[in-house]
Amino acid sequence: MADILHRVGVEDSTPQQVYDALTTLDGLSGWWAEKTTGDTDVGGVIEVRFGPGGIDMRVAELDPGRLVRWDVVGGSEEWIGTSVQFDIRQDGDWTIVLFRHEGWREPVEFMHHCSTKWGTFLMSLKELVETGTGAPDPRDVRVSDWH
Amino acid sequence: MADILHRVGVEDSTPQQVYDALTTLDGLSGWWAEKTTGDTDVGGVIEVRFGPGGIDMRVAELDPGRLVRWDVVGGSEEWIGTSVQFDIRQDGDWTIVLFRHEGWREPVEFMHHCSTKWGTFLMSLKELVETGTGAPDPRDVRVSDWH
Repeated sequence: MADILHRVGVEDSTPQQVYDALTTLDGLSGWWAEKTTGDTDVGGVIEVRFGPGGIDMRVAELDPGRLVRWDVVGGSEEWIGTSVQFDIRQDGDWTIVLFRHEGWREPVEFMHHCSTKWGTFLMSLKELVETGTGAPDPRDVRVSDWH
Repeated sequence: MADILHRVGVEDSTPQQVYDALTTLDGLSGWWAEKTTGDTDVGGVIEVRFGPGGIDMRVAELDPGRLVRWDVVGGSEEWIGTSVQFDIRQDGDWTIVLFRHEGWREPVEFMHHCSTKWGTFLMSLKELVETGTGAPDPRDVRVSDWH
């Protein structure tokens, strides 16, 4: 098993603001993918659509201002059965986000790609909360031929 | 043991250009840290300096246009004994870089931070080769309170 890890800090923000960006369709479509639909409550399924493909995630756990956890239930084969977790905390003027996408069966090349993309999407989350504007798909940062 | 993985693609470039950016002081100081000194041949030690701290890496393996591997021999305690590897290949108009920073003893919070920073530095490498200008320390992209 292998994990993708990241850490970003959102300046002059509160954990609640970051939590809102992770748990509302408005927030998710502002930093991850404009085409995000579904139910963001625990047990609901969030549908994120990128161009031709997409990901479906069941909301597994929510602790307001502290934790968000999704189980991936649809999308690319490598993602099915993995989980995505955000741990959020205040640290002075910063909101710290510890990110983990865990449960990959093998460290395949697609996992390398997803790690870099998650980094740019978390920077997009940071920008959304700091400035009001993120870079969600289809305006996301291109990292390679795989987009 | 845990690894940091990334994948970037450098458009309209050759593996040799990316290899040069990884194996010359000029290249390294153009995308990673302006204060880079040392010996970039196999067995040599490259010294990368960020503000107060830094990293020393022994060049463990070089395969021109294909592979660069460094063993970390100095710097923060968590990095000592880890290795950094770049696998490079041509894929159409793109040069694909598969990155691995392996051998972390524990997935500590600093590892989360380094994963995000590596992502931004690899984007800086991509920009350097594509445009001639990267974002090395101290002009690097800030991701959090830890910089």
